[in-house]
Amino acid sequence: MKLVSVGSVAFDAIETPFGKSDKIVGGAGSYIALTASYFTKPAGLVSVVGGDFDQSFLKDLESRSVDLAGLQTKADEKSFFWSGKYHNDMNSRDTLVTELNVLGEFDPILPEAYQAPDFLMLGNLSPEVQMKVINQISNRPKLVVLDTMNFWMDIAWDDLMAVLPKIDVLTINDEEARQLSKEYSLVKAAQKIMSMGPKFLIIKKGEHGALLFNKNNEVFFAPALPLEEVFDPTGAGDTFAGGFIGYLASTSDISFENMKRAIIVGSAMASFCVEKFGTERLQNLTQDEIDDRVESFVSLTQFDMTLTAE
Amino acid sequence: MKLVSVGSVAFDAIETPFGKSDKIVGGAGSYIALTASYFTKPAGLVSVVGGDFDQSFLKDLESRSVDLAGLQTKADEKSFFWSGKYHNDMNSRDTLVTELNVLGEFDPILPEAYQAPDFLMLGNLSPEVQMKVINQISNRPKLVVLDTMNFWMDIAWDDLMAVLPKIDVLTINDEEARQLSKEYSLVKAAQKIMSMGPKFLIIKKGEHGALLFNKNNEVFFAPALPLEEVFDPTGAGDTFAGGFIGYLASTSDISFENMKRAIIVGSAMASFCVEKFGTERLQNLTQDEIDDRVESFVSLTQFDMTLTAE
Repeated sequence: MKLVSVGSVAFDAIETPFGKSDKIVGGAGSYIALTASYFTKPAGLVSVVGGDFDQSFLKDLESRSVDLAGLQTKADEKSFFWSGKYHNDMNSRDTLVTELNVLGEFDPILPEAYQAPDFLMLGNLSPEVQMKVINQISNRPKLVVLDTMNFWMDIAWDDLMAVLPKIDVLTINDEEARQLSKEYSLVKAAQKIMSMGPKFLIIKKGEHGALLFNKNNEVFFAPALPLEEVFDPTGAGDTFAGGFIGYLASTSDISFENMKRAIIVGSAMASFCVEKFGTERLQNLTQDEIDDRVESFVSLTQFDMTLTAE
Repeated sequence: MKLVSVGSVAFDAIETPFGKSDKIVGGAGSYIALTASYFTKPAGLVSVVGGDFDQSFLKDLESRSVDLAGLQTKADEKSFFWSGKYHNDMNSRDTLVTELNVLGEFDPILPEAYQAPDFLMLGNLSPEVQMKVINQISNRPKLVVLDTMNFWMDIAWDDLMAVLPKIDVLTINDEEARQLSKEYSLVKAAQKIMSMGPKFLIIKKGEHGALLFNKNNEVFFAPALPLEEVFDPTGAGDTFAGGFIGYLASTSDISFENMKRAIIVGSAMASFCVEKFGTERLQNLTQDEIDDRVESFVSLTQFDMTLTAE
């Protein structure tokens, strides 16, 4: 399998200043698999859902050549459920409900066809579960990307420290980078975090863009697209990750220059994600829309310093 | 005169988490004139100081071909003095002391040689004083850039509304853009603010970079350089403005493409400014250092989407 992704496939209920959703499909695995499917096919998804899960969403994934052999269904249990409310500035949110349900005892099982992927995306789950996935991989993938969050730094520090040396790219947000490194400066934080294992670090700053660091002190920055309205930020980070690894897998090129392009693609996909509730916008994209959006990032950021004045 | 700048030339006393300065030279006019001098010579500076001002700083400006015929000295009065303390995150500060002194009754007088500048930079002063400068200009400059702040929105709204139609580029920070437009989205804010007069808007976001908008919905974004340490952010916005207009004046090109380059130059100069207290770092730059810093922005932001994978 070219790409295997692991992450929650779940229900969310979201309230923003613009409105309130019903119980809709969410979860890191959903966003990652959906987004990556625009670039790489087939791609396997490892996750678990309950008997209550939305079958039409799974059918949609399959129609996009997402392989669901790694998706367990526990018919007698309920899917993971998260509910949250965004504050007026959309940069912070309160969690209203977290029901682990099937995710509480999730034991990922990789089908044989998943055990030697070229690219492996470990979405935000406990580092213990992420390690269980890594332990089922027979050949070192070309690239392993791992996403995590402050919650695991708080309650599973040792497990996180154990998994970091096994991966290539870590994605976290700016506050998490500060927590993980105990450094305020993101430049200092990045070097310290890379000394914990990962060769590359992506720091996601939400509406303020994303930074890519490597161990040679190279840095690349991509802004978020300035939008008239951010309707619902849920899943933007996972969508970014799905676009990033989907593009890398499709090009099979893990050079720093190609990672820059992958960051732009991830940012473009994330800019779609926030336009509607949940996964809705990501289920209805055309290649032209994606190309146009990437082009918006080119005109937003590119300049030619070598041109002479008129 | 190719470039005329107006702004305070003053004393600051600054406290940051890294240390505390003595009473040192500050003021928008100082940062703007100093920074622009690396690009455009000669350039006139319109301001006022007291008999207590630092003559060696003025000598330094003159040695950089900054014309001081527009700088009034009130021998019996004291220079403007500001003192502030930055919080730990360096993104917010408390003003400890503001002594207007000579600035309280500042009546700008443009020498004849200043009255038809190609480029005019109106640093942050009351919109009434900014208007007095504009009223002394005989020929419409190629470009007029104006900087202002929330304080004037609070106490001099009508004066500000009167001056905005007379200028080409407005520079403000993100919170000020929201206050001025009453829109949270910076994209919506930008269009609303440009309907008040300016053809271009630069929104400065401090460590999160700067956005340039025009009325055709074109947008350009430049990040701030990720630095190991921001030692003192005082003057970074004025330094940015000085680099922006200095570069434009030196190239005599006010196309959107050239404004992009000017934004990068301004960002590069601002990245030096924050490395030391006050104007210190800006008084000791070599052309090689400036070129290298601009090159850092190129590698930080440029990518080539057209390249094919390996």
